[in-house]
Amino acid sequence: MRDVAVIGVGCTTFGEKWSTAFRHLFIEAGALALEDAGVQGEQVDALYVGNMSAGRFVEQEHIGALIADYAGLATTHIASTRVEAACASGGLAFRQAVIAVASGMEDIVVAAGVEKMTDVGTGASVEALAGAADREWEGFVGATFPGLYAMMAVDYMHRYPLSREDLAQVAVKNHSNGAKNPIAQFQQEITIDTVLRSSLVADPLRLFDCSPITDGAAAVVLAPLERVHEFTGTPVKVLATAQASDSIALHDRRDISTLDATVAAANRAFSKAHLTPREIDLVEVHDCFTIAEIIAIEDLGFCRKGEGGRLTREGETALGGRIPVNTSGGLKACGHPVGATGIKQVWEVVTQLRGEAGARQVDSAEIGMTHNVGGTGATVAVHILGVT
Amino acid sequence: MRDVAVIGVGCTTFGEKWSTAFRHLFIEAGALALEDAGVQGEQVDALYVGNMSAGRFVEQEHIGALIADYAGLATTHIASTRVEAACASGGLAFRQAVIAVASGMEDIVVAAGVEKMTDVGTGASVEALAGAADREWEGFVGATFPGLYAMMAVDYMHRYPLSREDLAQVAVKNHSNGAKNPIAQFQQEITIDTVLRSSLVADPLRLFDCSPITDGAAAVVLAPLERVHEFTGTPVKVLATAQASDSIALHDRRDISTLDATVAAANRAFSKAHLTPREIDLVEVHDCFTIAEIIAIEDLGFCRKGEGGRLTREGETALGGRIPVNTSGGLKACGHPVGATGIKQVWEVVTQLRGEAGARQVDSAEIGMTHNVGGTGATVAVHILGVT
Repeated sequence: MRDVAVIGVGCTTFGEKWSTAFRHLFIEAGALALEDAGVQGEQVDALYVGNMSAGRFVEQEHIGALIADYAGLATTHIASTRVEAACASGGLAFRQAVIAVASGMEDIVVAAGVEKMTDVGTGASVEALAGAADREWEGFVGATFPGLYAMMAVDYMHRYPLSREDLAQVAVKNHSNGAKNPIAQFQQEITIDTVLRSSLVADPLRLFDCSPITDGAAAVVLAPLERVHEFTGTPVKVLATAQASDSIALHDRRDISTLDATVAAANRAFSKAHLTPREIDLVEVHDCFTIAEIIAIEDLGFCRKGEGGRLTREGETALGGRIPVNTSGGLKACGHPVGATGIKQVWEVVTQLRGEAGARQVDSAEIGMTHNVGGTGATVAVHILGVT
Repeated sequence: MRDVAVIGVGCTTFGEKWSTAFRHLFIEAGALALEDAGVQGEQVDALYVGNMSAGRFVEQEHIGALIADYAGLATTHIASTRVEAACASGGLAFRQAVIAVASGMEDIVVAAGVEKMTDVGTGASVEALAGAADREWEGFVGATFPGLYAMMAVDYMHRYPLSREDLAQVAVKNHSNGAKNPIAQFQQEITIDTVLRSSLVADPLRLFDCSPITDGAAAVVLAPLERVHEFTGTPVKVLATAQASDSIALHDRRDISTLDATVAAANRAFSKAHLTPREIDLVEVHDCFTIAEIIAIEDLGFCRKGEGGRLTREGETALGGRIPVNTSGGLKACGHPVGATGIKQVWEVVTQLRGEAGARQVDSAEIGMTHNVGGTGATVAVHILGVT
């Protein structure tokens, strides 16, 4: 197995992109990533695209070929593969790309994620997203994602010390970071009051506890570490990539205040990289709802179970804190184009490790982590990246 | 890169399976494959599932996790990944599984394909399948797959010697093979008259030129060649796996009587395996329509361009002929559950190479090939397998 490096990254702005088609979102991100890496299109050996539900959002399947074609890469007949795992599609696309390079099967590989969610109405969008949960049990009885995560929040708050204000603080922090990120969907700061006064979606979660519906794409270029000197980009090494599954339905879990798949994936990643949580300088976690960030930072090992609220309240997860979480603004403020999120997380960590994150830069960041969740935790991808 | 072997295969019967749910189709195929391999569920390291459009057929995404869960594999939190490339989804799932084992990242990996197409009406099914072509150009003007392949047939028949009867002979041969395959959707022989008298779908293609709407699943178990002695199954070696892309829309192709992606994938596979078409004992090709088989046998190198009709007419592609094509019955008679087809092709080749194909057995078969197409040829996967 060869060592693998990220040699270029690109990301579109995230938001409601009415004038950009699904296929063009990828082109923009892909072109930025290739330019950043100093790689020509014809040098690309393979493409992996994370996408959750273009079939339902834009009535298009066969995404790998479509993207290769519109990127001008089908002329060399490159292998192009779509990977799907609901909101963890991007994280898994990155992992497959790493495996392809590590194996020696391919050299220069682009891993991308893309989702165009605003071409259908909110109802159809919520229905499409419900396909990430168990359609025959959860979907059948009308449970949608805000409802499922609200159940997790209720269970958590019943068992551990977490106030409504602590939850709100997650959104406040992530908006504060998003305000410093030029690609973020929401670039304005909010207060705890903004969250508490926003409309109730699924008790206890309010509008500002929820990540938005977003259009966007992100792409990264991978190469064997031994070849990075051939390209102009600043390389960042992939120290570990791990993936874990769990039961798709929330009601089949051992414990709904913990994502066992996060624990499993994190353990595998830390063990592979010979690292511990203490050595991680920043982490992008999957905050599809504020409660998800609280649970994630505990399950990843940044604090003990039940301490996520305190950690957040005391500013330890803010910029300048002990372990900055979601410096990009996270899913909450940067936005959540579901298939693209896992790649955007890598984009943010690489940007930070290269010292190019501007106003949201974490001082002397050398090792970063990403945590990407599908559904309510049935798929989790964790990657660790480090400066070379 | 390690050598990889198929150590077990399983396939459901193909057909209109009204009483079986999407998730249960996989379980049946997976259990058969594990039993065949002599592998316990807890020994499985990873799972790759090919599926085209469960989002539109059964309103379910996040297929990898769902399948792992219902197979009882989520308890060990295995990595489970869905791969999509329209009707080539199964072929690409197999390829990703081979890469995972070859890389050393995983040891025992299940590659599966599944599709449940009959839970929606024919109209919705045709619409879902149209997602394999270019939605914004081909789909937008109402072009569906019979129409697209009919255009290829018209172009081909204008340029090369191919009679309406030659086309029909493809279906006659594949029904003859299907009649000898206990899992086939159609197990009855037909005559050229059956095809010529069937209703016109898209001139010149008639009903019996078209593969059917099918429910079904197939699964295979992979292991490093060096570990096959630990299991009870008869191993078959993966000699090559290749994949190629092309423009998604037919109107952007250089030539619509040839699939350039088939040519590219076949060249890569033959070159990797150090083999030529003469050394292949049987091949499963993607006969979604009769014209597709004619084009495929030429593009794969089994005869020159324009000779596919003659080869078929003279019985060289029949059982006992020079190069038996689609001994399983092909997509036409065995059925075409789109995401499962690429894995069923591997199932058939492995069954043949193990000498277990019963009435449809190819004498002394030692090397077999599969050819799986997405859309009208925007993705092609070609695999070569051989006895160990």
